[in-house]
Amino acid sequence: MQSQHVVIIGAGFGGLNAAKALANQPGFSVTIIDKTNHHLFQPLLYQVATAALSPGDIAMPIREIFRKDKNIKTLMAMVKTINRSEKVVVLDDNQEIPYDYLIVASGARHSYFGQNQWETFAPGLKTLDDALQVREMILTSFELAEKLAEETADKSLIESLLTFVVIGAGPTGVEMAGAIAEIAHQSLKRNFRAIDPGKTKVYLIEGSDQVLNSYPRKLADYAVRDLEKKRVTVLLNTRVTDVNAEGVAIGKEFIHAHNIIWAAGNEASTLLKTLDVPCDKSGRVIVQPDLSLVDDPAVFVIGDAAFYRENERALPAIAPVALQEGRFVGNIICKKIPADKRPVFHYKDRGMMANIGKFDALVLSGPLQSTGFFAWLAWCFVHIYFLIGFRNKLLVFTQWVFYFFRGQRNVRLIVRPVKEKMQN
Amino acid sequence: MQSQHVVIIGAGFGGLNAAKALANQPGFSVTIIDKTNHHLFQPLLYQVATAALSPGDIAMPIREIFRKDKNIKTLMAMVKTINRSEKVVVLDDNQEIPYDYLIVASGARHSYFGQNQWETFAPGLKTLDDALQVREMILTSFELAEKLAEETADKSLIESLLTFVVIGAGPTGVEMAGAIAEIAHQSLKRNFRAIDPGKTKVYLIEGSDQVLNSYPRKLADYAVRDLEKKRVTVLLNTRVTDVNAEGVAIGKEFIHAHNIIWAAGNEASTLLKTLDVPCDKSGRVIVQPDLSLVDDPAVFVIGDAAFYRENERALPAIAPVALQEGRFVGNIICKKIPADKRPVFHYKDRGMMANIGKFDALVLSGPLQSTGFFAWLAWCFVHIYFLIGFRNKLLVFTQWVFYFFRGQRNVRLIVRPVKEKMQN
Repeated sequence: MQSQHVVIIGAGFGGLNAAKALANQPGFSVTIIDKTNHHLFQPLLYQVATAALSPGDIAMPIREIFRKDKNIKTLMAMVKTINRSEKVVVLDDNQEIPYDYLIVASGARHSYFGQNQWETFAPGLKTLDDALQVREMILTSFELAEKLAEETADKSLIESLLTFVVIGAGPTGVEMAGAIAEIAHQSLKRNFRAIDPGKTKVYLIEGSDQVLNSYPRKLADYAVRDLEKKRVTVLLNTRVTDVNAEGVAIGKEFIHAHNIIWAAGNEASTLLKTLDVPCDKSGRVIVQPDLSLVDDPAVFVIGDAAFYRENERALPAIAPVALQEGRFVGNIICKKIPADKRPVFHYKDRGMMANIGKFDALVLSGPLQSTGFFAWLAWCFVHIYFLIGFRNKLLVFTQWVFYFFRGQRNVRLIVRPVKEKMQN
Repeated sequence: MQSQHVVIIGAGFGGLNAAKALANQPGFSVTIIDKTNHHLFQPLLYQVATAALSPGDIAMPIREIFRKDKNIKTLMAMVKTINRSEKVVVLDDNQEIPYDYLIVASGARHSYFGQNQWETFAPGLKTLDDALQVREMILTSFELAEKLAEETADKSLIESLLTFVVIGAGPTGVEMAGAIAEIAHQSLKRNFRAIDPGKTKVYLIEGSDQVLNSYPRKLADYAVRDLEKKRVTVLLNTRVTDVNAEGVAIGKEFIHAHNIIWAAGNEASTLLKTLDVPCDKSGRVIVQPDLSLVDDPAVFVIGDAAFYRENERALPAIAPVALQEGRFVGNIICKKIPADKRPVFHYKDRGMMANIGKFDALVLSGPLQSTGFFAWLAWCFVHIYFLIGFRNKLLVFTQWVFYFFRGQRNVRLIVRPVKEKMQN
């Protein structure tokens, strides 16, 4: 019997765990296709953007992860279209890769709600490249402010350089705002002579009436108090009406800011459109109870690319959902379960957690709600536990000791000085 | 009495140690100007280029190093010209910074012997940005080879992608050639399915008749044997006559190679020309015995930017020379020694060392010549000892355990996929 070929698009939590379920299974060969060469531990990406960790600490080459699994092949490539009638995936150089089963785990990008021109001024945070750009933007602003402070009498320019606006108060927005405040008020202490980084202003803007929408209000209010202690200005019920080179407009008011970070919305990868199936409003594919397509049991969509409703609630776009979905789909394929006998996917919700700074986090697990030091310890433990590779666990642990206990953020590197900005 | 203002251009080993000598000295204020925001531990830069270390492990923000020294100010800026008659340094935005004393420690860039068009195809290794570009070039070649191996019958393209040429067999060239061979033959083992990284070819090309010119021939021959054991082809007495997109011409022969790395020559920063003083043929300023300019005792040039002859021998462009020169000049300024009473600079030569791979190095210290495991231990110890910051020492140590003992090079990240190359 010929072996079945499984193609997996995307090596995030979903794709990776689907591949693991198929590793070394006789009768299956697997091809993982990803735009980059690494699996990224996205929950810690904000720490790369805020100079606490190096990119190499939270990413692992995909082919290194599967080096012992001879039936798994990795390709670094862009997928252009999926042709379901021919059962092939087409790469951007028109190479065609045939499949027997296809798992689409292509994730999501930020969505600017139709205002794509805002992206130039308000980068988001999905890839390592994004994180490094945000890191350099933040650090360059302080450098430029120090340089200009002696040259110019224009205090408003310095103030704009030292103003940071984070748009969207989901987990990433909350973590970024807290971390930027810590950089300004702690990590950069005594580093400057002409400016006072303590005067940095950080805004966190949220359209709805609470931060961390998926958490109970009690925990969300705790997070707001904590952010305000760190001198973050939290603006709820506030709609951003424009983003440009000068700053952010919120209705009639305007915040002059040189640094804007977008954490407000996601939309699924545009590749999904080529599947030609029903999607939700953010472009996610509406999947069957076995996570396959309605008319095509050989094609599965998982993770941030999928819309799946369980108990009247759409599953959130978080790592544990993607991970469990990947494993579930991998097992269905592995056991060759025919379409009409497949189990229904059930998400085992072990809870959620968010770091809101040094020694402080929110943990929500079933009836348990916890905040403060022990929640923070749990957060650290869980994140190190799920990191891939002993080396990465050890490096992150080591750097957290310096970062949390001594306030050091030593990956404060500007590798590609932004020349245009420096010549402002 | 008004305080004296010392301007230091460049925060490499020379500039950093000059500043340290002046830290918290009453009567002096210091401004350090650097193009980047960090001090770079250049001796380990090749390990960033070969994915063994992260940039953050070998670099430290300059202003963080001097956070406790209130009389030291750091500016991230480009210096355009030095105007000695007005005693000002002019930045590229025309800001003028006056000085009482000036220390020029602006280092060197690679020199392509007048063939600057070669730079596009054969990048060199001086900055973190250089190292990351080389890292991505190396890793992308293997990815592209794996991808093309199934698509094309053109074996020569795959071979070219798996051919690496290092031009120049000084310490950087020897270290790079050895490390690339280790990547191909060890670190990438079992990572690929369509190609065999074991078939990678690595060439090390040197114009003179020995590698590591500044070492005794016995040690140089040892290094060659070691490189050949790693399957590096060492070509001595070989002149490169052309470098282009296809590869490297050496006389009538042509090596088809997708990856070319330049380690063949240095020339001092072009800024030195604005000093309008005598220079040697590679553009270094010929300095007085006190490292000042012949007609200007308030201006010093140190490190790779200076040409200084002691005992009939020009001091080499290495970190210990720059470090001692920086300290020497800092002390002269600190003690306000008038021009006619200054001491003569004397380089305390404690020796040289080069890593030629796992568990193997060359050490030359006075009459002592050592190779092999104990030389390698000494190399590790010295490099960690001189790294700045306990955190960096610990991180490098930790990663070396994984790298040397388990062959892991896990900073194998392609952050900015080279799109043009992938579409070849």
